[in-house]
Amino acid sequence: MGKERTKAMKIGFIGLGVMGKPMASHLLARGYPLVVHSRSRGPVDALVAAGAVAAASPVEVARQSDVVITMLPDTPDVERVLTGPNGVIRGLATGGMAIDMSSISPVAARALAAKVAEVGCTMLDAPVSGGEIGAINASLSIMVGGSAEAFERARPIFECLGHADRIVHIGAEPGSGQLCKVCNQVAIGGALAGVSEALALARKAGVDGARVRQALLGGFASSRVLEVHGERILTSQFTPGFRSRLYQKDLRIALEAGAANGAAMPTATLVAALVDALVASGGADLDYSAIGTML
Amino acid sequence: MGKERTKAMKIGFIGLGVMGKPMASHLLARGYPLVVHSRSRGPVDALVAAGAVAAASPVEVARQSDVVITMLPDTPDVERVLTGPNGVIRGLATGGMAIDMSSISPVAARALAAKVAEVGCTMLDAPVSGGEIGAINASLSIMVGGSAEAFERARPIFECLGHADRIVHIGAEPGSGQLCKVCNQVAIGGALAGVSEALALARKAGVDGARVRQALLGGFASSRVLEVHGERILTSQFTPGFRSRLYQKDLRIALEAGAANGAAMPTATLVAALVDALVASGGADLDYSAIGTML
Repeated sequence: MGKERTKAMKIGFIGLGVMGKPMASHLLARGYPLVVHSRSRGPVDALVAAGAVAAASPVEVARQSDVVITMLPDTPDVERVLTGPNGVIRGLATGGMAIDMSSISPVAARALAAKVAEVGCTMLDAPVSGGEIGAINASLSIMVGGSAEAFERARPIFECLGHADRIVHIGAEPGSGQLCKVCNQVAIGGALAGVSEALALARKAGVDGARVRQALLGGFASSRVLEVHGERILTSQFTPGFRSRLYQKDLRIALEAGAANGAAMPTATLVAALVDALVASGGADLDYSAIGTML
Repeated sequence: MGKERTKAMKIGFIGLGVMGKPMASHLLARGYPLVVHSRSRGPVDALVAAGAVAAASPVEVARQSDVVITMLPDTPDVERVLTGPNGVIRGLATGGMAIDMSSISPVAARALAAKVAEVGCTMLDAPVSGGEIGAINASLSIMVGGSAEAFERARPIFECLGHADRIVHIGAEPGSGQLCKVCNQVAIGGALAGVSEALALARKAGVDGARVRQALLGGFASSRVLEVHGERILTSQFTPGFRSRLYQKDLRIALEAGAANGAAMPTATLVAALVDALVASGGADLDYSAIGTML
Protein backbone atom coordinates (compact mmCIF):
# COMPACT_ATOMS: atom_id res chain seq x y z
CA MET A 1 0.00 0.00 0.00
CA GLY A 2 3.06 2.31 0.13
CA LYS A 3 2.31 3.41 3.68
CA GLU A 4 4.93 5.35 5.61
CA ARG A 5 5.56 3.07 8.60
CA THR A 6 7.46 5.80 10.45
CA LYS A 7 4.24 7.60 11.39
CA ALA A 8 3.23 6.14 14.71
CA MET A 9 0.45 8.55 15.66
CA LYS A 10 -2.82 6.60 15.70
CA ILE A 11 -5.77 8.62 14.46
CA GLY A 12 -9.45 8.06 15.13
CA PHE A 13 -11.98 9.57 12.74
CA ILE A 14 -15.65 9.96 13.62
CA GLY A 15 -18.15 11.11 11.01
CA LEU A 16 -17.58 9.75 7.49
CA GLY A 17 -20.04 11.97 5.62
CA VAL A 18 -19.57 13.95 2.42
CA MET A 19 -16.61 15.76 3.98
CA GLY A 20 -15.33 13.20 6.49
CA LYS A 21 -15.00 10.25 4.15
CA PRO A 22 -12.50 11.81 1.72
CA MET A 23 -10.64 13.47 4.60
CA ALA A 24 -10.24 10.13 6.41
CA SER A 25 -9.13 8.52 3.13
CA HIS A 26 -6.31 11.08 2.76
CA LEU A 27 -5.02 10.29 6.26
CA LEU A 28 -5.07 6.57 5.50
CA ALA A 29 -3.33 7.12 2.16
CA ARG A 30 -0.59 9.07 3.94
CA GLY A 31 0.11 6.09 6.17
CA TYR A 32 -1.65 6.96 9.42
CA PRO A 33 -3.14 3.97 11.28
CA LEU A 34 -6.85 4.88 11.30
CA VAL A 35 -9.80 3.81 13.45
CA VAL A 36 -13.17 4.93 12.14
CA HIS A 37 -16.76 5.25 13.31
CA SER A 38 -19.81 6.61 11.55
CA ARG A 39 -23.59 6.25 11.63
CA SER A 40 -23.75 4.93 8.05
CA ARG A 41 -22.32 1.50 7.32
CA GLY A 42 -21.29 2.20 3.70
CA PRO A 43 -18.43 4.69 4.27
CA VAL A 44 -17.14 2.60 7.21
CA ASP A 45 -16.93 -0.49 4.98
CA ALA A 46 -15.17 1.53 2.27
CA LEU A 47 -12.54 2.83 4.72
CA VAL A 48 -12.06 -0.64 6.26
CA ALA A 49 -11.52 -2.07 2.78
CA ALA A 50 -8.79 0.57 2.35
CA GLY A 51 -7.05 -0.46 5.57
CA ALA A 52 -8.87 1.28 8.43
CA VAL A 53 -10.20 -0.44 11.54
CA ALA A 54 -13.87 0.01 12.48
CA ALA A 55 -14.93 0.75 16.06
CA ALA A 56 -18.44 0.40 17.47
CA SER A 57 -18.64 3.70 19.35
CA PRO A 58 -16.79 6.99 19.95
CA VAL A 59 -15.31 5.69 23.21
CA GLU A 60 -14.01 2.61 21.37
CA VAL A 61 -12.40 4.85 18.75
CA ALA A 62 -10.75 6.92 21.48
CA ARG A 63 -9.33 3.87 23.29
CA GLN A 64 -7.36 2.95 20.16
CA SER A 65 -6.25 6.48 19.17
CA ASP A 66 -3.78 9.21 20.10
CA VAL A 67 -5.80 11.83 18.24
CA VAL A 68 -9.52 11.72 17.52
CA ILE A 69 -10.95 13.85 14.71
CA THR A 70 -14.67 14.61 14.55
CA MET A 71 -16.43 15.79 11.39
CA LEU A 72 -20.13 15.97 12.23
CA PRO A 73 -23.18 17.94 11.10
CA ASP A 74 -23.97 20.19 14.06
CA THR A 75 -23.13 21.28 17.62
CA PRO A 76 -25.28 18.66 19.46
CA ASP A 77 -23.68 15.85 17.44
CA VAL A 78 -20.19 16.93 18.48
CA GLU A 79 -21.27 17.37 22.11
CA ARG A 80 -22.76 13.87 22.19
CA VAL A 81 -19.80 12.22 20.45
CA LEU A 82 -17.16 13.95 22.61
CA THR A 83 -18.83 14.14 26.03
CA GLY A 84 -21.87 11.79 25.91
CA PRO A 85 -22.17 8.42 27.71
CA ASN A 86 -20.05 6.65 25.08
CA GLY A 87 -18.07 9.78 24.31
CA VAL A 88 -14.49 10.27 23.23
CA ILE A 89 -13.34 11.78 26.53
CA ARG A 90 -14.19 8.50 28.30
CA GLY A 91 -11.68 6.63 26.13
CA LEU A 92 -8.80 9.03 25.42
CA ALA A 93 -5.62 8.38 27.40
CA THR A 94 -4.01 11.30 29.24
CA GLY A 95 -2.14 13.46 26.75
CA GLY A 96 -4.49 12.55 23.91
CA MET A 97 -6.00 15.10 21.56
CA ALA A 98 -9.46 15.78 20.17
CA ILE A 99 -9.68 17.80 16.96
CA ASP A 100 -13.15 18.92 15.98
CA MET A 101 -13.24 19.86 12.31
CA SER A 102 -17.03 20.28 12.20
CA SER A 103 -18.53 23.77 11.97
CA ILE A 104 -20.17 24.36 15.35
CA SER A 105 -20.88 27.14 17.81
CA PRO A 106 -17.70 28.89 19.05
CA VAL A 107 -19.28 29.07 22.51
CA ALA A 108 -19.90 25.32 22.53
CA ALA A 109 -16.37 24.71 21.20
CA ARG A 110 -14.94 26.58 24.18
CA ALA A 111 -17.05 24.57 26.63
CA LEU A 112 -16.00 21.31 24.97
CA ALA A 113 -12.32 22.27 25.16
CA ALA A 114 -12.73 22.76 28.92
CA LYS A 115 -14.28 19.30 29.31
CA VAL A 116 -11.51 17.71 27.26
CA ALA A 117 -8.93 19.51 29.42
CA GLU A 118 -10.58 18.06 32.56
CA VAL A 119 -9.52 14.54 31.49
CA GLY A 120 -5.93 15.65 30.84
CA CYS A 121 -6.27 15.93 27.08
CA THR A 122 -6.00 18.75 24.54
CA MET A 123 -8.59 20.03 22.11
CA LEU A 124 -8.33 21.98 18.87
CA ASP A 125 -11.27 23.44 17.01
CA ALA A 126 -10.34 23.31 13.33
CA PRO A 127 -13.30 23.97 11.04
CA VAL A 128 -12.69 24.01 7.32
CA SER A 129 -13.73 25.91 4.23
CA GLY A 130 -13.66 24.59 0.69
CA GLY A 131 -16.54 22.13 0.67
CA GLU A 132 -16.72 18.63 -0.76
CA ILE A 133 -14.34 19.52 -3.62
CA GLY A 134 -11.81 20.86 -1.13
CA ALA A 135 -12.13 17.69 0.95
CA ILE A 136 -11.68 15.43 -2.09
CA ASN A 137 -8.72 17.44 -3.44
CA ALA A 138 -7.11 17.89 -0.01
CA SER A 139 -7.23 21.64 -0.62
CA LEU A 140 -9.26 22.75 2.40
CA SER A 141 -8.68 25.97 4.29
CA ILE A 142 -8.34 25.10 7.97
CA MET A 143 -8.92 27.67 10.75
CA VAL A 144 -7.49 26.48 14.04
CA GLY A 145 -8.18 27.52 17.62
CA GLY A 146 -6.22 26.15 20.58
CA SER A 147 -2.70 26.20 21.99
CA ALA A 148 0.22 26.83 19.63
CA GLU A 149 1.83 23.62 20.90
CA ALA A 150 -1.21 21.51 20.03
CA PHE A 151 -1.44 23.27 16.67
CA GLU A 152 2.15 22.34 15.84
CA ARG A 153 1.55 18.75 16.92
CA ALA A 154 -1.50 18.53 14.66
CA ARG A 155 0.00 20.36 11.70
CA PRO A 156 1.18 17.20 9.86
CA ILE A 157 -2.40 15.92 10.03
CA PHE A 158 -3.81 19.20 8.69
CA GLU A 159 -1.26 19.18 5.87
CA CYS A 160 -2.79 15.91 4.64
CA LEU A 161 -6.12 17.74 4.24
CA GLY A 162 -5.31 21.27 3.05
CA HIS A 163 -2.70 23.52 1.46
CA ALA A 164 0.00 24.49 3.97
CA ASP A 165 -0.57 28.22 3.34
CA ARG A 166 -4.27 27.89 4.07
CA ILE A 167 -3.79 26.29 7.47
CA VAL A 168 -4.00 29.25 9.85
CA HIS A 169 -3.59 29.24 13.62
CA ILE A 170 -6.21 31.83 14.49
CA GLY A 171 -5.56 31.99 18.22
CA ALA A 172 -4.77 30.12 21.42
CA GLU A 173 -8.25 30.77 22.82
CA PRO A 174 -10.46 27.69 22.36
CA GLY A 175 -13.20 28.44 19.84
CA SER A 176 -11.05 30.91 17.83
CA GLY A 177 -11.13 28.60 14.82
CA GLN A 178 -14.93 28.35 14.98
CA LEU A 179 -15.18 32.11 15.39
CA CYS A 180 -13.11 32.52 12.24
CA LYS A 181 -15.37 30.09 10.40
CA VAL A 182 -18.33 32.23 11.48
CA CYS A 183 -16.52 35.29 10.07
CA ASN A 184 -15.97 33.35 6.84
CA GLN A 185 -19.66 32.50 6.49
CA VAL A 186 -20.72 36.06 7.32
CA ALA A 187 -18.31 37.56 4.76
CA ILE A 188 -19.49 35.11 2.11
CA GLY A 189 -23.11 35.84 3.00
CA GLY A 190 -22.70 39.58 2.49
CA ALA A 191 -20.93 39.07 -0.81
CA LEU A 192 -23.55 36.57 -1.96
CA ALA A 193 -26.46 38.81 -0.98
CA GLY A 194 -24.87 41.73 -2.85
CA VAL A 195 -24.18 39.71 -6.00
CA SER A 196 -27.63 38.08 -5.90
CA GLU A 197 -29.33 41.43 -5.56
CA ALA A 198 -27.22 43.05 -8.28
CA LEU A 199 -27.96 40.26 -10.77
CA ALA A 200 -31.65 40.19 -9.84
CA LEU A 201 -31.82 43.94 -10.50
CA ALA A 202 -30.09 43.50 -13.87
CA ARG A 203 -32.60 40.81 -14.83
CA LYS A 204 -35.61 42.88 -13.78
CA ALA A 205 -34.22 45.87 -15.67
CA GLY A 206 -33.69 43.81 -18.81
CA VAL A 207 -29.91 44.22 -18.73
CA ASP A 208 -27.61 41.32 -19.69
CA GLY A 209 -26.41 39.85 -16.39
CA ALA A 210 -23.46 38.10 -18.04
CA ARG A 211 -22.08 41.44 -19.22
CA VAL A 212 -22.69 42.96 -15.82
CA ARG A 213 -20.76 40.09 -14.21
CA GLN A 214 -17.95 40.54 -16.75
CA ALA A 215 -17.71 44.27 -16.09
CA LEU A 216 -17.83 43.81 -12.32
CA LEU A 217 -15.14 41.09 -12.31
CA GLY A 218 -12.71 43.65 -13.76
CA GLY A 219 -13.08 46.04 -10.84
CA PHE A 220 -13.53 46.48 -7.15
CA ALA A 221 -16.63 44.28 -6.95
CA SER A 222 -14.49 41.29 -7.95
CA SER A 223 -14.83 38.29 -5.65
CA ARG A 224 -14.79 34.50 -5.70
CA VAL A 225 -18.52 34.68 -4.98
CA LEU A 226 -19.15 36.83 -8.08
CA GLU A 227 -16.96 34.52 -10.13
CA VAL A 228 -18.40 31.17 -9.03
CA HIS A 229 -21.87 31.89 -7.63
CA GLY A 230 -22.43 34.70 -10.14
CA GLU A 231 -22.09 32.08 -12.87
CA ARG A 232 -24.43 29.70 -11.01
CA ILE A 233 -27.02 32.44 -10.57
CA LEU A 234 -26.91 33.48 -14.23
CA THR A 235 -27.40 29.89 -15.40
CA SER A 236 -29.76 28.85 -12.55
CA GLN A 237 -27.48 25.88 -11.69
CA PHE A 238 -28.40 25.28 -8.06
CA THR A 239 -27.37 21.64 -7.72
CA PRO A 240 -25.31 21.54 -4.53
CA GLY A 241 -22.57 22.53 -3.91
CA PHE A 242 -23.35 23.58 -0.40
CA ARG A 243 -26.89 22.84 0.73
CA SER A 244 -28.97 25.75 1.96
CA ARG A 245 -30.01 23.87 5.10
CA LEU A 246 -26.33 23.62 6.11
CA TYR A 247 -25.77 27.30 5.47
CA GLN A 248 -28.92 27.98 7.52
CA LYS A 249 -27.24 26.17 10.41
CA ASP A 250 -24.02 28.18 9.95
CA LEU A 251 -25.93 31.46 10.05
CA ARG A 252 -27.81 30.40 13.19
CA ILE A 253 -24.39 29.81 14.77
CA ALA A 254 -23.23 33.21 13.47
CA LEU A 255 -26.17 35.00 15.09
CA GLU A 256 -25.55 33.13 18.35
CA ALA A 257 -21.88 34.16 18.22
CA GLY A 258 -22.89 37.76 17.61
CA ALA A 259 -25.24 37.71 20.58
CA ALA A 260 -22.65 36.00 22.81
CA ASN A 261 -20.05 38.65 21.97
CA GLY A 262 -22.25 41.74 21.85
CA ALA A 263 -21.60 42.24 18.13
CA ALA A 264 -24.27 43.72 15.84
CA MET A 265 -25.01 41.31 12.98
CA PRO A 266 -27.41 43.04 10.59
CA THR A 267 -25.89 41.48 7.46
CA ALA A 268 -25.97 37.93 8.84
CA THR A 269 -29.55 38.57 9.99
CA LEU A 270 -30.57 39.65 6.50
CA VAL A 271 -28.82 36.75 4.80
CA ALA A 272 -30.33 34.33 7.33
CA ALA A 273 -33.80 35.69 6.47
CA LEU A 274 -33.16 35.02 2.77
CA VAL A 275 -31.88 31.51 3.48
CA ASP A 276 -34.86 30.83 5.78
CA ALA A 277 -37.19 31.90 2.97
CA LEU A 278 -35.36 29.62 0.52
CA VAL A 279 -35.56 26.64 2.88
CA ALA A 280 -39.20 27.37 3.75
CA SER A 281 -40.11 27.43 0.06
CA GLY A 282 -38.64 23.99 -0.56
CA GLY A 283 -35.04 24.88 -1.36
CA ALA A 284 -33.31 23.19 1.60
CA ASP A 285 -31.30 20.93 -0.69
CA LEU A 286 -30.47 23.57 -3.30
CA ASP A 287 -27.09 25.26 -3.34
CA TYR A 288 -27.11 28.33 -1.09
CA SER A 289 -26.40 30.56 -4.09
CA ALA A 290 -30.14 30.18 -4.83
CA ILE A 291 -30.99 32.81 -2.19
CA GLY A 292 -31.35 35.34 -5.01
CA THR A 293 -34.44 33.47 -6.24
CA MET A 294 -36.16 34.90 -3.14
CA LEU A 295 -35.65 38.47 -4.41
CA MET B 1 3.97 68.47 -27.00
CA GLY B 2 4.14 65.32 -29.17
CA LYS B 3 0.44 65.44 -29.97
CA GLU B 4 -0.96 63.15 -32.64
CA ARG B 5 -2.31 65.61 -35.21
CA THR B 6 -4.18 62.87 -37.07
CA LYS B 7 -6.96 62.76 -34.47
CA ALA B 8 -9.54 65.24 -35.66
CA MET B 9 -12.37 64.49 -33.23
CA LYS B 10 -12.83 67.56 -31.03
CA ILE B 11 -13.72 66.70 -27.45
CA GLY B 12 -15.43 68.86 -24.86
CA PHE B 13 -15.00 67.97 -21.20
CA ILE B 14 -17.28 69.36 -18.48
CA GLY B 15 -16.49 68.70 -14.82
CA LEU B 16 -12.81 68.80 -13.87
CA GLY B 17 -13.08 67.40 -10.35
CA VAL B 18 -11.08 64.65 -8.67
CA MET B 19 -12.02 62.24 -11.47
CA GLY B 20 -12.56 64.59 -14.41
CA LYS B 21 -9.29 66.45 -14.25
CA PRO B 22 -6.97 63.45 -14.73
CA MET B 23 -9.35 61.95 -17.30
CA ALA B 24 -9.33 65.19 -19.36
CA SER B 25 -5.54 65.31 -19.05
CA HIS B 26 -5.22 61.83 -20.58
CA LEU B 27 -7.31 62.88 -23.60
CA LEU B 28 -5.17 65.95 -24.08
CA ALA B 29 -1.98 63.93 -23.73
CA ARG B 30 -3.23 61.52 -26.40
CA GLY B 31 -3.60 64.40 -28.83
CA TYR B 32 -7.31 65.19 -28.78
CA PRO B 33 -8.18 68.88 -29.20
CA LEU B 34 -9.95 69.63 -25.92
CA VAL B 35 -12.41 72.32 -24.78
CA VAL B 36 -13.04 72.38 -21.06
CA HIS B 37 -15.48 73.86 -18.58
CA SER B 38 -15.72 73.48 -14.82
CA ARG B 39 -17.04 75.38 -11.81
CA SER B 40 -13.59 75.69 -10.23
CA ARG B 41 -11.02 77.91 -11.90
CA GLY B 42 -7.94 75.96 -10.78
CA PRO B 43 -8.36 72.77 -12.83
CA VAL B 44 -9.46 74.80 -15.88
CA ASP B 45 -6.26 76.85 -15.71
CA ALA B 46 -4.18 73.70 -15.35
CA LEU B 47 -5.76 72.10 -18.42
CA VAL B 48 -5.44 75.33 -20.44
CA ALA B 49 -1.76 75.48 -19.51
CA ALA B 50 -1.46 71.95 -20.92
CA GLY B 51 -3.08 72.93 -24.21
CA ALA B 52 -6.84 72.88 -23.70
CA VAL B 53 -9.21 75.72 -24.55
CA ALA B 54 -11.55 77.07 -21.87
CA ALA B 55 -15.23 77.75 -22.58
CA ALA B 56 -17.57 79.86 -20.44
CA SER B 57 -20.56 77.53 -20.40
CA PRO B 58 -21.71 74.03 -21.41
CA VAL B 59 -23.33 75.37 -24.58
CA GLU B 60 -20.04 77.06 -25.52
CA VAL B 61 -18.20 73.79 -25.00
CA ALA B 62 -20.70 72.00 -27.22
CA ARG B 63 -20.44 74.53 -30.06
CA GLN B 64 -16.71 73.76 -30.37
CA SER B 65 -16.92 69.96 -29.93
CA ASP B 66 -17.91 66.78 -31.77
CA VAL B 67 -18.19 64.85 -28.53
CA VAL B 68 -18.94 66.28 -25.08
CA ILE B 69 -18.02 64.29 -21.98
CA THR B 70 -19.59 65.11 -18.62
CA MET B 71 -18.11 63.99 -15.29
CA LEU B 72 -20.27 65.57 -12.59
CA PRO B 73 -21.28 64.81 -8.99
CA ASP B 74 -24.97 63.90 -9.23
CA THR B 75 -28.04 63.51 -11.44
CA PRO B 76 -29.31 67.15 -11.21
CA ASP B 77 -25.87 68.45 -12.24
CA VAL B 78 -25.88 66.33 -15.39
CA GLU B 79 -29.48 67.29 -16.19
CA ARG B 80 -28.67 71.00 -15.86
CA VAL B 81 -25.43 70.80 -17.87
CA LEU B 82 -26.94 68.76 -20.70
CA THR B 83 -30.48 70.11 -20.96
CA GLY B 84 -30.53 73.37 -18.97
CA PRO B 85 -30.77 76.93 -20.44
CA ASN B 86 -27.06 76.94 -21.35
CA GLY B 87 -26.99 73.19 -21.83
CA VAL B 88 -24.93 71.03 -24.16
CA ILE B 89 -27.87 70.05 -26.38
CA ARG B 90 -28.32 73.73 -27.36
CA GLY B 91 -24.80 73.78 -28.82
CA LEU B 92 -24.11 70.32 -30.27
CA ALA B 93 -24.32 70.09 -34.06
CA THR B 94 -26.45 67.33 -35.57
CA GLY B 95 -24.57 64.04 -35.38
CA GLY B 96 -22.73 65.09 -32.26
CA MET B 97 -22.38 62.89 -29.18
CA ALA B 98 -22.81 63.36 -25.45
CA ILE B 99 -21.05 60.87 -23.18
CA ASP B 100 -22.00 61.06 -19.52
CA MET B 101 -19.37 59.35 -17.39
CA SER B 102 -20.85 60.51 -14.08
CA SER B 103 -22.68 58.02 -11.84
CA ILE B 104 -26.33 59.03 -12.02
CA SER B 105 -29.78 57.48 -11.95
CA PRO B 106 -30.35 54.95 -14.79
CA VAL B 107 -33.88 56.31 -15.14
CA ALA B 108 -32.59 59.87 -15.57
CA ALA B 109 -29.93 58.63 -18.00
CA ARG B 110 -32.62 57.14 -20.21
CA ALA B 111 -34.62 60.38 -20.17
CA LEU B 112 -31.51 62.40 -21.02
CA ALA B 113 -30.70 60.10 -23.94
CA ALA B 114 -34.16 60.78 -25.34
CA LYS B 115 -33.64 64.54 -25.10
CA VAL B 116 -30.24 64.28 -26.79
CA ALA B 117 -31.81 62.20 -29.57
CA GLU B 118 -34.44 64.93 -30.09
CA VAL B 119 -31.70 67.31 -31.33
CA GLY B 120 -30.29 64.70 -33.70
CA CYS B 121 -27.40 63.66 -31.50
CA THR B 122 -26.38 60.43 -29.76
CA MET B 123 -25.82 59.75 -26.08
CA LEU B 124 -23.86 57.14 -24.21
CA ASP B 125 -24.01 56.60 -20.47
CA ALA B 126 -20.56 55.41 -19.45
CA PRO B 127 -20.03 55.45 -15.69
CA VAL B 128 -16.73 54.23 -14.34
CA SER B 129 -15.33 52.21 -11.46
CA GLY B 130 -11.82 52.46 -10.11
CA GLY B 131 -11.85 55.78 -8.28
CA GLU B 132 -9.29 58.57 -8.29
CA ILE B 133 -6.40 56.10 -8.64
CA GLY B 134 -8.07 54.52 -11.66
CA ALA B 135 -8.61 57.94 -13.21
CA ILE B 136 -4.99 58.97 -12.63
CA ASN B 137 -3.58 55.67 -13.92
CA ALA B 138 -6.04 55.47 -16.86
CA SER B 139 -7.11 52.08 -15.52
CA LEU B 140 -10.83 52.71 -15.06
CA SER B 141 -13.52 50.11 -15.67
CA ILE B 142 -16.10 51.66 -18.01
CA MET B 143 -19.67 50.35 -18.28
CA VAL B 144 -21.38 51.63 -21.38
CA GLY B 145 -25.05 51.90 -22.32
CA GLY B 146 -26.21 53.03 -25.77
CA SER B 147 -26.08 51.91 -29.39
CA ALA B 148 -23.31 49.58 -30.49
CA GLU B 149 -22.43 52.03 -33.25
CA ALA B 150 -21.97 54.91 -30.82
CA PHE B 151 -19.99 52.63 -28.51
CA GLU B 152 -17.57 51.76 -31.32
CA ARG B 153 -17.22 55.42 -32.26
CA ALA B 154 -16.39 56.31 -28.67
CA ARG B 155 -14.13 53.33 -27.98
CA PRO B 156 -10.85 55.16 -28.82
CA ILE B 157 -11.80 57.79 -26.24
CA PHE B 158 -12.58 55.17 -23.59
CA GLU B 159 -9.27 53.43 -24.32
CA CYS B 160 -7.46 56.61 -23.25
CA LEU B 161 -9.14 56.27 -19.84
CA GLY B 162 -9.29 52.55 -19.03
CA HIS B 163 -7.93 49.10 -19.84
CA ALA B 164 -9.40 47.76 -23.10
CA ASP B 165 -10.63 44.56 -21.40
CA ARG B 166 -12.48 46.56 -18.76
CA ILE B 167 -14.48 48.62 -21.25
CA VAL B 168 -17.75 46.71 -21.52
CA HIS B 169 -20.72 47.51 -23.74
CA ILE B 170 -23.50 46.51 -21.34
CA GLY B 171 -26.42 47.06 -23.70
CA ALA B 172 -28.01 49.18 -26.40
CA GLU B 173 -30.72 50.38 -24.04
CA PRO B 174 -29.89 53.89 -22.73
CA GLY B 175 -29.14 53.70 -19.01
CA SER B 176 -27.69 50.16 -19.20
CA GLY B 177 -24.28 51.44 -18.21
CA GLN B 178 -25.72 53.27 -15.20
CA LEU B 179 -27.71 50.18 -14.26
CA CYS B 180 -24.47 48.18 -14.32
CA LYS B 181 -22.79 50.78 -12.12
CA VAL B 182 -25.67 50.39 -9.67
CA CYS B 183 -25.09 46.61 -9.70
CA ASN B 184 -21.41 47.28 -9.04
CA GLN B 185 -22.13 49.44 -6.01
CA VAL B 186 -24.69 46.97 -4.65
CA ALA B 187 -22.29 44.02 -5.03
CA ILE B 188 -19.52 46.00 -3.33
CA GLY B 189 -21.91 47.06 -0.58
CA GLY B 190 -22.86 43.49 0.27
CA ALA B 191 -19.25 42.38 0.31
CA LEU B 192 -18.24 45.38 2.43
CA ALA B 193 -21.06 44.84 4.93
CA GLY B 194 -20.13 41.17 5.25
CA VAL B 195 -16.41 41.87 5.74
CA SER B 196 -17.11 44.75 8.16
CA GLU B 197 -19.43 42.61 10.25
CA ALA B 198 -17.03 39.64 10.24
CA LEU B 199 -14.09 41.76 11.40
CA ALA B 200 -16.22 43.58 14.00
CA LEU B 201 -17.27 40.20 15.41
CA ALA B 202 -13.65 39.03 15.53
CA ARG B 203 -12.67 42.20 17.41
CA LYS B 204 -15.52 41.88 19.91
CA ALA B 205 -14.67 38.21 20.44
CA GLY B 206 -11.00 39.02 21.06
CA VAL B 207 -9.83 37.13 17.97
CA ASP B 208 -6.98 38.48 15.80
CA GLY B 209 -8.68 40.09 12.79
CA ALA B 210 -5.48 40.01 10.73
CA ARG B 211 -5.34 36.21 11.00
CA VAL B 212 -9.04 35.98 10.20
CA ARG B 213 -8.48 38.09 7.08
CA GLN B 214 -5.50 35.92 6.12
CA ALA B 215 -7.49 32.71 6.53
CA LEU B 216 -10.48 34.10 4.62
CA LEU B 217 -8.36 35.37 1.71
CA GLY B 218 -7.31 31.77 1.05
CA GLY B 219 -10.85 30.56 0.52
CA PHE B 220 -14.27 31.27 -0.83
CA ALA B 221 -14.69 34.53 1.09
CA SER B 222 -11.85 36.01 -0.93
CA SER B 223 -12.63 39.35 -2.55
CA ARG B 224 -11.02 42.64 -3.51
CA VAL B 225 -13.07 44.21 -0.71
CA LEU B 226 -11.62 41.81 1.88
CA GLU B 227 -8.15 42.41 0.50
CA VAL B 228 -8.20 46.22 0.32
CA HIS B 229 -10.96 47.35 2.69
CA GLY B 230 -10.26 44.50 5.10
CA GLU B 231 -6.78 45.97 5.52
CA ARG B 232 -8.21 49.50 5.94
CA ILE B 233 -10.67 48.29 8.57
CA LEU B 234 -8.01 46.41 10.56
CA THR B 235 -5.74 49.46 10.64
CA SER B 236 -8.56 52.06 10.92
CA GLN B 237 -7.21 53.92 7.86
CA PHE B 238 -10.32 55.73 6.68
CA THR B 239 -8.71 58.57 4.75
CA PRO B 240 -10.58 58.60 1.42
CA GLY B 241 -10.44 56.78 -0.94
CA PHE B 242 -14.10 57.04 -1.73
CA ARG B 243 -16.05 59.43 0.45
CA SER B 244 -19.05 58.05 2.32
CA ARG B 245 -21.26 60.91 1.13
CA LEU B 246 -20.64 59.87 -2.48
CA TYR B 247 -21.41 56.25 -1.71
CA GLN B 248 -24.56 57.47 0.06
CA LYS B 249 -25.60 59.07 -3.23
CA ASP B 250 -24.85 55.87 -5.18
CA LEU B 251 -26.99 53.82 -2.81
CA ARG B 252 -29.85 56.31 -3.08
CA ILE B 253 -29.66 55.81 -6.85
CA ALA B 254 -29.56 52.03 -6.32
CA LEU B 255 -32.73 52.08 -4.23
CA GLU B 256 -34.44 54.28 -6.83
CA ALA B 257 -33.39 51.85 -9.56
CA GLY B 258 -34.74 48.94 -7.52
CA ALA B 259 -38.07 50.69 -7.05
CA ALA B 260 -38.25 51.69 -10.74
CA ASN B 261 -37.68 48.09 -11.83
CA GLY B 262 -39.67 46.23 -9.17
CA ALA B 263 -36.53 44.62 -7.74
CA ALA B 264 -36.25 43.83 -4.02
CA MET B 265 -33.15 45.55 -2.59
CA PRO B 266 -32.77 44.41 1.02
CA THR B 267 -28.96 44.39 0.93
CA ALA B 268 -28.68 47.88 -0.57
CA THR B 269 -31.24 49.07 2.00
CA LEU B 270 -29.17 47.67 4.85
CA VAL B 271 -25.90 49.07 3.52
CA ALA B 272 -27.57 52.44 2.92
CA ALA B 273 -28.70 52.47 6.55
CA LEU B 274 -25.11 51.87 7.70
CA VAL B 275 -23.78 54.60 5.40
CA ASP B 276 -26.51 56.98 6.57
CA ALA B 277 -25.48 56.30 10.17
CA LEU B 278 -21.84 56.93 9.30
CA VAL B 279 -22.63 60.22 7.55
CA ALA B 280 -25.02 61.29 10.34
CA SER B 281 -22.32 60.70 12.94
CA GLY B 282 -19.82 62.94 11.15
CA GLY B 283 -18.19 60.49 8.78
CA ALA B 284 -19.31 62.00 5.46
CA ASP B 285 -15.73 62.57 4.35
CA LEU B 286 -14.33 59.28 5.62
CA ASP B 287 -13.75 56.39 3.24
CA TYR B 288 -16.89 54.26 2.92
CA SER B 289 -15.04 51.27 4.37
CA ALA B 290 -15.67 52.96 7.74
CA ILE B 291 -19.27 51.67 7.81
CA GLY B 292 -18.11 48.88 10.12
CA THR B 293 -17.47 51.50 12.83
CA MET B 294 -21.27 51.72 13.09
CA LEU B 295 -21.51 48.05 14.19
